[in-house]
Amino acid sequence: MRATTIHAPRDIRLSDVPDPRIEADTEAIVKIVAGCICGSDLWPYRGENDITAGDTIGHEAVGIVEEVGSAVTSFTPGDFVVVPFCHADNTCPHCRVGMHAVCDHLGFTESGQAEYTTVHQAEGSLVKTPGGAVPDAGLIPSLLSLSDVMATGWHAAVSARVTKGGTAVVVGDGAVGLCGVLAAAHLGAERVVAMSRHEPRQEIARAFGATDIVAERGDEGAERIAEITGGVGADAVLECVGTDQAMKTAFQVARPGAMVGFVGVPHGVELPVRRMFQRNVGLAGGMAPVRAYLPELMDLVLDGTINPGLVFDVTLPLDQVAEGYRMMDERRAIKVLLQP
Amino acid sequence: MRATTIHAPRDIRLSDVPDPRIEADTEAIVKIVAGCICGSDLWPYRGENDITAGDTIGHEAVGIVEEVGSAVTSFTPGDFVVVPFCHADNTCPHCRVGMHAVCDHLGFTESGQAEYTTVHQAEGSLVKTPGGAVPDAGLIPSLLSLSDVMATGWHAAVSARVTKGGTAVVVGDGAVGLCGVLAAAHLGAERVVAMSRHEPRQEIARAFGATDIVAERGDEGAERIAEITGGVGADAVLECVGTDQAMKTAFQVARPGAMVGFVGVPHGVELPVRRMFQRNVGLAGGMAPVRAYLPELMDLVLDGTINPGLVFDVTLPLDQVAEGYRMMDERRAIKVLLQP
Repeated sequence: MRATTIHAPRDIRLSDVPDPRIEADTEAIVKIVAGCICGSDLWPYRGENDITAGDTIGHEAVGIVEEVGSAVTSFTPGDFVVVPFCHADNTCPHCRVGMHAVCDHLGFTESGQAEYTTVHQAEGSLVKTPGGAVPDAGLIPSLLSLSDVMATGWHAAVSARVTKGGTAVVVGDGAVGLCGVLAAAHLGAERVVAMSRHEPRQEIARAFGATDIVAERGDEGAERIAEITGGVGADAVLECVGTDQAMKTAFQVARPGAMVGFVGVPHGVELPVRRMFQRNVGLAGGMAPVRAYLPELMDLVLDGTINPGLVFDVTLPLDQVAEGYRMMDERRAIKVLLQP
Repeated sequence: MRATTIHAPRDIRLSDVPDPRIEADTEAIVKIVAGCICGSDLWPYRGENDITAGDTIGHEAVGIVEEVGSAVTSFTPGDFVVVPFCHADNTCPHCRVGMHAVCDHLGFTESGQAEYTTVHQAEGSLVKTPGGAVPDAGLIPSLLSLSDVMATGWHAAVSARVTKGGTAVVVGDGAVGLCGVLAAAHLGAERVVAMSRHEPRQEIARAFGATDIVAERGDEGAERIAEITGGVGADAVLECVGTDQAMKTAFQVARPGAMVGFVGVPHGVELPVRRMFQRNVGLAGGMAPVRAYLPELMDLVLDGTINPGLVFDVTLPLDQVAEGYRMMDERRAIKVLLQP
């Protein structure tokens, strides 16, 4: 099949690789209808994560079940499914409390920017549309977003304990941050502040429910949040970047007793433990347990309540994947959808 | 008055200092009936915190209101009160959400090991017994514990989100840790594991509701907890020490999705942000908002539901305060009550 592979920093290719095959009875093969490029794919792209030359890359996908292993009973070839980027058995003690991202049988989508991908724990991971029917094309982007980015923004909001009536601040205007805005608004935050200085992203943030935009960064940004919150600070903060600067800002703008929900893979982050102690500001989050949220989020997408697919501002055929990476790296695109 | 002063590491004296006087209309002077030595007093005693020679020390006290400023309307001389170690106005935006430890008018008890102490925000901070009546002598230790240590253990349990039916692990067998055991048991944890290798402390932990004692430390201790929890980890972890080792252990034993509630003032702690992310284990806590918990805890003490005063295993007259410090430093005492 054709699959995206990475060979060195900034060396992304569409290559011919062996078709995936069922290798365990818990697996399924999904023919990808849409995949995409994740902000976290830019870490290896920029050489900030280790690379094994020739590895496939991409972990977000929706598609149609092609083949299932003998232990997979709830899905049959032809079902349209969302593939969570992290695969879970949905039965282990961690899954049972909604912590699918730390499943005893954790696996990952390894060729999401390709024609096919393997789902290691298909029974516990996949969620299909009602009856497994192929949805309207207009719903594909939003369903695709549930495989990672929207579920991750949601996890930030849940981890930050967004509640009705309060103020939520979202640090980061990447696709995850924008989905965090949507999640915070949906969970009832009365004011949702998006920290963003890019006009197209501000627009999506507003469409997702942001009531305030703060374009300033660092100390200036924190001062603006202080003004907005009457000097009190935010009731909930979503840290959707993963850098030390973003985390610092998150703790700066949180009110005492608040939680910072973090979902950006931490790179060079040093947590300000003394400040956390003195201000009683907590931290929770991590890799999103996509499967835990997926049924609820799929309902919200299918009934038109949320439209997270708006984060895809560029759609490319799979053979232009390298250009997709360049566009995201140079911030010419917010998030690129790929069509095999 | 006679008050405890610190002059250098391990140099604790009972000195004559000026009587405190009302200097602001929000203040009250309390004649101390009982004070005590806190584990956190050992940081300067051991030279691990800065010292200003001659400063008074001690921040835990119960006593009788001696005099009040003109803005203090709910208390009159003669009232028996618990003095929270941190003083708060109980009206600012932070107090209104229970974050009294970050009050806009935060103050501290500065001479808790003395004959008198000033309460800077008396109206918002003090809590009196019903009718202000002097309680039975047998209740004094438990009421005294509410000024800090029991409220702090409670804050650890609340921050760790102890809920009914789960397993709570308490790291640290100092008086705060023991009170954390009591709090976790009272909040309904089905199994409460006290990490302690000191027999007298284990005994109190059991009296407070510990169902399991783990005497091992570090990796061995974590292995024991893994056995106890069937390899899953604890639903809630109370970090009641403040050292890097204790924090490491706390994160080692927490199950994915759990919270570590921390109340030990962090000294040299580096938070394992990558592990927190990968395991989805959060952290919350800080300085305890004593006033927020005080009314409820006082009820529990007065009706005999909890008896946190058991943490005081030694009572000394105030003029033996230096010996009290030595006993706690050398772990010959768990917690020393001082009678002026």
